[in-house]
Amino acid sequence: MKEIHSIIDTLSQKSDSKIVMLVADGLGGMPMTPDGKTELETAKMPNLDKIVPASQIGLLDPVQPGITPGSGPGHLGIFGYDPLEANIGRGVLSALGVNFDLKHGDLCARINLCTIDGNGIITDRRAGRIATDQNIRIMKKLNENINVPDGVQLFLETEKEHRAGMVLRGKKFYADIADTDPQKTGLAPLDPVASDPAKGEETVEILKDIIAQAKAILADEPQANMMLLRGFAEYSQYPTMQERFKMKSLALATYPMYRGLAKLIGMDVNWNISTMEEQLDELKKQFNNYDFFFIHIKKTDSYGEDGNFEQKVKVIESIDTMIPKILELNPDVLILTCDHSTPAKMKAHSWHRIPSLIYSQWCRPDRISTFNEYTCRGGSLTGLATKHLIPIAMAHAGKLAKFGA
Amino acid sequence: MKEIHSIIDTLSQKSDSKIVMLVADGLGGMPMTPDGKTELETAKMPNLDKIVPASQIGLLDPVQPGITPGSGPGHLGIFGYDPLEANIGRGVLSALGVNFDLKHGDLCARINLCTIDGNGIITDRRAGRIATDQNIRIMKKLNENINVPDGVQLFLETEKEHRAGMVLRGKKFYADIADTDPQKTGLAPLDPVASDPAKGEETVEILKDIIAQAKAILADEPQANMMLLRGFAEYSQYPTMQERFKMKSLALATYPMYRGLAKLIGMDVNWNISTMEEQLDELKKQFNNYDFFFIHIKKTDSYGEDGNFEQKVKVIESIDTMIPKILELNPDVLILTCDHSTPAKMKAHSWHRIPSLIYSQWCRPDRISTFNEYTCRGGSLTGLATKHLIPIAMAHAGKLAKFGA
Repeated sequence: MKEIHSIIDTLSQKSDSKIVMLVADGLGGMPMTPDGKTELETAKMPNLDKIVPASQIGLLDPVQPGITPGSGPGHLGIFGYDPLEANIGRGVLSALGVNFDLKHGDLCARINLCTIDGNGIITDRRAGRIATDQNIRIMKKLNENINVPDGVQLFLETEKEHRAGMVLRGKKFYADIADTDPQKTGLAPLDPVASDPAKGEETVEILKDIIAQAKAILADEPQANMMLLRGFAEYSQYPTMQERFKMKSLALATYPMYRGLAKLIGMDVNWNISTMEEQLDELKKQFNNYDFFFIHIKKTDSYGEDGNFEQKVKVIESIDTMIPKILELNPDVLILTCDHSTPAKMKAHSWHRIPSLIYSQWCRPDRISTFNEYTCRGGSLTGLATKHLIPIAMAHAGKLAKFGA
Repeated sequence: MKEIHSIIDTLSQKSDSKIVMLVADGLGGMPMTPDGKTELETAKMPNLDKIVPASQIGLLDPVQPGITPGSGPGHLGIFGYDPLEANIGRGVLSALGVNFDLKHGDLCARINLCTIDGNGIITDRRAGRIATDQNIRIMKKLNENINVPDGVQLFLETEKEHRAGMVLRGKKFYADIADTDPQKTGLAPLDPVASDPAKGEETVEILKDIIAQAKAILADEPQANMMLLRGFAEYSQYPTMQERFKMKSLALATYPMYRGLAKLIGMDVNWNISTMEEQLDELKKQFNNYDFFFIHIKKTDSYGEDGNFEQKVKVIESIDTMIPKILELNPDVLILTCDHSTPAKMKAHSWHRIPSLIYSQWCRPDRISTFNEYTCRGGSLTGLATKHLIPIAMAHAGKLAKFGA
């Protein structure tokens, strides 16, 4: 799918127009029973209803039919990147999420602090979800005491509770290394193993040594006395939204991972906001300074994963209250979408197509009166991949030149 | 589309769930007159009607818009293989269909026994459709009397009536060779011609010699006194469904070619069944031993090719009676689909999009009450390629892991 990138990149042009993308994470749902309603069908959205008839709506595929995306591929798609070409490791996301300043070639991994017993067997994979300040103390102790070979730098960064990020810098590392987390208690942590043992030998030796030192250093900790490593990945700089689409972009997200994803593709990130109100305030304040705004709402996904249908409906209804405040600013295009479905019935991300809406004066209006998974089926966006949302929005915003003479 | 293969293959995971794929060959149809009904619209399907509202339905493309698929590409698509990447020659299908044990690199061709007159002109391209036992006698005679160069092995295998298969083994053969069948009577058989004469020289010489010997050996036959060769193709081992999708698969087909197609991608094949009842019995008997079941119904296609609208409708109605017997076994996913349309009006395979249905508790139900080419148009599967059916069914069956972090 290289061609879609190159052509959009070639045609993109700077303009004063504004695009706001409101992402309700995991918005897509399904009925709890075959004859029931979905979360979106149940939610009352009087503000959205006013703009639906003049919008384009539809059901889109985040990656490919049948594929359940993680948050990384899900977001890359709605940011206009092909999620198959542009896949990234969890380790990179963790580091970006804590605003660590990654350099091209860094090897990243996600750390889970865990508890092991006297025989080295894992008794708690999350070390009792220790408090974040304990995590900070432990990372400091590890950073100060672990020795790495000459020329190599090690960075250990607290994320939250038992989670942290590791970054190795200074060599050409091998990144295709299996997780050391055995994914259940009652087993010992696994050794790091390279998929190509010859190529990965040096990196594996460095990692084994770091893990052994960490184990010794943490031996006297009551809870977090070992670390598990997951999602090894090498960081390489992505082409930014500015480079590709000529859009200066701002991310207004309240959770680390989504800030990290935005940073990955060159968005400016507000690292301080934590509520919908702050997101809206910041949007208003920065409206003249950017071309593209990414507003991320996490709780639709969280309640979906909890299987809490009613609370997911309530979050959707609160998102509806954001709509008039966004429209007051007169954006040229408003996109409402999500990275994947998280039906409360499934308590998980799913492969179901995602409902999306594009509102602009340059839409050929779909003339459909409400927005949900069922009305979307007949909309004009149905069947597209999510990576096509950005080009369509850019077209509506006058940010794409004509192709060919 | 290489990536769809690799990504599905990477994410596939073993599970205890069961997928049943019911293939009504050539199911898609069209009205005999512009204001008439299609075969599917005419058929009464009370059993299917019960599950349609909770299913996903749609009109899918077997290969690409406008392409009429043969049985090979048609089936490869619904088995989750890209029919353009994975195309195979008729010769290979013939050999697989008679359960011949092909080896990687074998050169295969389809044989039609024919009748020629004293001047070598074809008077009957099918040798009067001689009885199969005559074919067996003739193949024995040819196998015993044709000489091939040292190191080469020749196998001639009866298929049915005037049809047989040829396999050459033992060298690196050149496979891009034109048919010797001129496709009409009143002409002499063509010589085998390689598309690249230099590369194909040795293979062509061997073939010419075999054909000349066969002509001499058959000279005294009253009907089948010559052979025509078609569909030259080299056999190369395909990645199996087991390797790609982690599904142990069983084919319940009553016709050789469909068994051959199933064998090609590593399905176990029941070589003995010949009726719908036996297919259902065998499904029940083997239900715990496999993950994926391919049930092939031929007669929808046969009556379509005959232009027999009424009989095609009756076969569809008899397929409806299979549904409750399949559902009794509680498969996690039931797929009803076909390899291509065969409208009775056209008396041939066609390029028309094919109606398909996926039934599972994890469908976001389409809430459509009946299943035919017209109701399918608004269904959620519409516009997909048939190769996406398997990934979607695997998602519903919990056989695909999440993509990316």
